[in-house]
Amino acid sequence: MVNDPQGLVVTDALHSLGYPEVLGTRVGKYIRLELAADLESTAAKRVDEMCRRLLCNGVIEDYSFEIAAGMS
Amino acid sequence: MVNDPQGLVVTDALHSLGYPEVLGTRVGKYIRLELAADLESTAAKRVDEMCRRLLCNGVIEDYSFEIAAGMS
Repeated sequence: MVNDPQGLVVTDALHSLGYPEVLGTRVGKYIRLELAADLESTAAKRVDEMCRRLLCNGVIEDYSFEIAAGMS
Repeated sequence: MVNDPQGLVVTDALHSLGYPEVLGTRVGKYIRLELAADLESTAAKRVDEMCRRLLCNGVIEDYSFEIAAGMS
């Protein structure tokens, strides 16, 4: 698991605001891509590549993704 | 829908890297809270409050959340 100082700060802030029930916080990025693709398997392969090449900084971040079928 | 300049930049960058199938990108924050709560309804009410008071900047961000039951 990657170190998350921002998560610790948010947990402290929530405690200060009166939310002692917060046991932990993880802060990350959420990226939603709209893709033109015929096959889910192709889309998954391409998105994994995009994550490794551009979207995710592997030194300080983990990543995961889901493919959802859309219209067309 | 909130304006998302960072999403436009990521779309352009992905096109430059050879991913023309990317039609659009939205970039946001993902926050995972671990909570101690007896009732899902209570947890949802409290989390909504946390979003409005601290986690979400209503001027430039929308938010949504899901409650998932965990261990205890």
